[in-house]
Amino acid sequence: MNQPLKINLTNELLELENFIIHRSCDIEQWFRIQWLENQAPFYGSVDLRNSGFKLAPVDMNLFPGGFNNLNPDFAPLAVQAASVAIEKVCPEAKKVLIIPEKHTRNLFYLKNLFQFKEILKNSGLEVRIGTVDSNILEATDILIDDHQSITLEPIQRRDDILYIKDRDGTEFVPCSVILNNDLSGGVPEKIKDIGQQVIPPINAGWPTRRKSSHFRYYSQVAKEFSLLTKCDPWLIDPLFKKIDNLDFSTREGEDKLVETIDNLLHQIQNKYDEYNISQDPYVVIKADAGTYGMGVMTVKKSSEAINLNRKMRKKMSVVKEGLSVSEVLVQEGIHTEETINSAVAEPVVYMIDHFVIGGFYRVHTLKGKDENLNSPGMHFAPVAFDTSCLMPDQGRPCHDKANRFYAYGVIARLSMLAAAKELAEK
Amino acid sequence: MNQPLKINLTNELLELENFIIHRSCDIEQWFRIQWLENQAPFYGSVDLRNSGFKLAPVDMNLFPGGFNNLNPDFAPLAVQAASVAIEKVCPEAKKVLIIPEKHTRNLFYLKNLFQFKEILKNSGLEVRIGTVDSNILEATDILIDDHQSITLEPIQRRDDILYIKDRDGTEFVPCSVILNNDLSGGVPEKIKDIGQQVIPPINAGWPTRRKSSHFRYYSQVAKEFSLLTKCDPWLIDPLFKKIDNLDFSTREGEDKLVETIDNLLHQIQNKYDEYNISQDPYVVIKADAGTYGMGVMTVKKSSEAINLNRKMRKKMSVVKEGLSVSEVLVQEGIHTEETINSAVAEPVVYMIDHFVIGGFYRVHTLKGKDENLNSPGMHFAPVAFDTSCLMPDQGRPCHDKANRFYAYGVIARLSMLAAAKELAEK
Repeated sequence: MNQPLKINLTNELLELENFIIHRSCDIEQWFRIQWLENQAPFYGSVDLRNSGFKLAPVDMNLFPGGFNNLNPDFAPLAVQAASVAIEKVCPEAKKVLIIPEKHTRNLFYLKNLFQFKEILKNSGLEVRIGTVDSNILEATDILIDDHQSITLEPIQRRDDILYIKDRDGTEFVPCSVILNNDLSGGVPEKIKDIGQQVIPPINAGWPTRRKSSHFRYYSQVAKEFSLLTKCDPWLIDPLFKKIDNLDFSTREGEDKLVETIDNLLHQIQNKYDEYNISQDPYVVIKADAGTYGMGVMTVKKSSEAINLNRKMRKKMSVVKEGLSVSEVLVQEGIHTEETINSAVAEPVVYMIDHFVIGGFYRVHTLKGKDENLNSPGMHFAPVAFDTSCLMPDQGRPCHDKANRFYAYGVIARLSMLAAAKELAEK
Repeated sequence: MNQPLKINLTNELLELENFIIHRSCDIEQWFRIQWLENQAPFYGSVDLRNSGFKLAPVDMNLFPGGFNNLNPDFAPLAVQAASVAIEKVCPEAKKVLIIPEKHTRNLFYLKNLFQFKEILKNSGLEVRIGTVDSNILEATDILIDDHQSITLEPIQRRDDILYIKDRDGTEFVPCSVILNNDLSGGVPEKIKDIGQQVIPPINAGWPTRRKSSHFRYYSQVAKEFSLLTKCDPWLIDPLFKKIDNLDFSTREGEDKLVETIDNLLHQIQNKYDEYNISQDPYVVIKADAGTYGMGVMTVKKSSEAINLNRKMRKKMSVVKEGLSVSEVLVQEGIHTEETINSAVAEPVVYMIDHFVIGGFYRVHTLKGKDENLNSPGMHFAPVAFDTSCLMPDQGRPCHDKANRFYAYGVIARLSMLAAAKELAEK
C-alpha cells in the first residue's frame, strides 16, 4: 500500500494510541497472562472502525473469508501461527478436511479458500475441501485464476466419521475437520455429532452464537484493558443494546426498537458532548446472529427504522441462507474517518490463534462515512497492510503505519479475547 | 540473495530432499509429536554442510550470535516465535536482562545483540543488556552504526537477585535473565545460583555441554527420522568419535588420536565406497567444549594431527577465553560443495523455540571446500536467505531456493531436537 493513509485523531484517542505504542511491553505482558487463562479460537477476523475519536471493533468473525486479501509477503507468519494453533488443538493430526461456505460461484471466496488451504498445507497438513453443498456430487475443479484451481469434493459419512472417497475407491479420512462455514443456514445434518474433532467447534456458528454476547464480553475485556491504559473504555468499545422478538415483516416489536434506538442515540450524544464531538450520532441495526451484511441498516433517527417499505422490510427480515431475524443488535455507529486517496477505508485484522497475521483495508470510493461497507453488491477494493502488525517502532511517530497497524492488532486481539471467553461459556 | 546458488546432488541425497519436500506433511506431523515430548531450547543456530551427497549439521549453537545476518524482511517471524517462546518459559515476565559475550569491540557481535534485543522488545519485553565484563563500570553506549547504539550496563547483585542500577538510583530488576553468552570462560561468580530464571539454563553453557553429547543425541534423532524417510541416516549424520585426556602441548594421548582418526577415516571411506564417492575423506578435530572456531583442525591423514609445530599446538590447546582443551571431538568432515558466484557457501539456520526464523550463508571466496569457515581471522560475507524456510512449494523443482531452505530447516530442526534431549538429560 503506497497510498497515504489519512486520519486525524482527537487528543484522547491520540493519547490511547500513544500508550499502546509506547507501552507495548505492558500490553504484551497483559495479553500473555490473558492467553494463559483463555484459549484463543482457532482463527478469526475483526472489522475495526477508526473515527478519529474512537477506535473499536464492530464485528468479529470466527470463520474468516478474506485470506486472499492479505499481503503474501507475510504468508510465513500465517504458516507459523497455524503451526502453533495446530500443535494446540490437534498435534497428532495429519489429514484435515476444510468445510467451506457454499458460495461456489464467488471467486473471491474461492481464492480465500485456496490461500487458507495453502497456509494449512505449509504448516504441515494434508488438506482436502469437502463441501456440504448437495449440488456437488463428485470432485469438482474450479479455476480461480489462470494457473490455479481448487477442488471441492462431496463429503461421505459412515457412522460418525466423515471422509472423502477417491475415484479409485480409497478413502481420505481426516483426523480433524476445520470449519470455514459460519453455519448461518443451520448445522447441516451431515456434520452433526461427528466423531472427528471440529475446529472451531460447531457452537461457534451462528445458530448458537450471538453478536450481543460477543460485545458483552468485549465490553468486559475493554474495561479490564482500560484499567491498564487508564483511558475511558468507551474509546475502544461501541455501545449496544439487544432486542428480542422483533419481526420486521409483521412490524411486531417496533415500539421496543424505537425506544432502544432513542435510548442509545441519547447515550452516544452524551459521550459526544463529553468529548466535544460535533458529528451526528447514529446506530447500526443488524441481526444478532448472522453475517455477510444482509439485514444491516444505518439510522440517525428512530423514525428511520420503522415504516419501512416492503423491500426494506424484506431485506431486514432475512439474512444469509434464509435464516430469519428476530433478535437484533442495535450498535453505536462509528464514523469511518480513515481514507486512502480520499476513499473511505476500513481495516480488517486477521488472526490465527492469538497471533495477528496481517490485515487489509476495505476501500470504497462511493460510500459515505457512516454506511456499512460490508453490504450486498458492495465492490470494495481490498488493500493489504504493507507492514506486519508486530513491530511497534518506538522511534517513529504514532501515525507511522507500522505503529498504527500495531494498535489495530491490539484492539483486534481484545476482540479475539472476548471471543475466547464467549466460546468457553458455551 | 540474487546470486544463483549452485550444487549438484547425488541420487541418494536428491531422493532424500525429494522426500522432505514432497512429504512435508508427514515430516511436520512427526515434528509436532516430537515437540510434544521434548521442550525445544529457547533459541539456537545450526551450521550445516551440503556436500551434494550428504547434508548434515556440523555444529549446534545454543547462544546464537548472528541475528544481524538474518533477512530483516522476516523479522516479524522472529518476533512471533519469540512471543511463543516467552509464553512457554516466562509468560509473566515483563523485564528481562540479556547477558552477552564480552566482545565489546566486535561490531558484528554488537549488531547481533542489537537485533536480538529488538526481537525481544517487539515481542513485548522491556530489555536491558547487563554485562559481566568487569571493565564496564557504568552504563556505556556503543555506536553500532550511524544511527543506532547499544547500551551495556554493569550488573548489580543483591543476595541472589541480579539488577541494574540507574543513575537516578532506581533499579531495573528483571524477571528473567537471557544468556547470549556461551560461558566458555566458565560461569561468572555473579550469575551463579541466582534467584531469577536463567534462559537457556546455565548448564547449556560450555562448562557442562559437550559437542559429542549433542552428536550422540543427534545420531539417535537422525536414525528415528530415517525410519520415516527410509533413507540411510548417514546422509544426514556426520560420523564422530570422542577422545578424552588429550593434551596437544605435552603430546599426551597422541596415540589414541592417531588410532581414532585412522578408524574414522576408514569408516568414512567405506561409506564413500558404498556410494561411489571419489572424493578424499577428511576429519575435523575440535574441542569437545567450546566454540568460535579456535582449536579446529582439518586433516586427511592421522599423521597431520601429530608432530604439530609449537604454533599449531598452542592453537589446538586453547580455545575461547583460555579454556583448555583435553576432550576432543573427531568429526567426519563434510565437503562444502555449495557455491554462490563460485564462492564457497555454508548455510546457518536460526531458530527460536522450535521455529525456523531464517538463515544465512557464510560465503568465502578464498577458502577450500574442506576447510573450516568459522575460524579466527575469517572474513566471511553473510548472505541472508531471501525466502523463509517455511514454504515448501510442491509445484517447484527441489533445487528451488524455497524448497532447499525448507530442507535446511528440517535438518536444523533435527539438530534442535537433539539439543532438546541433550538439555533434558542434564
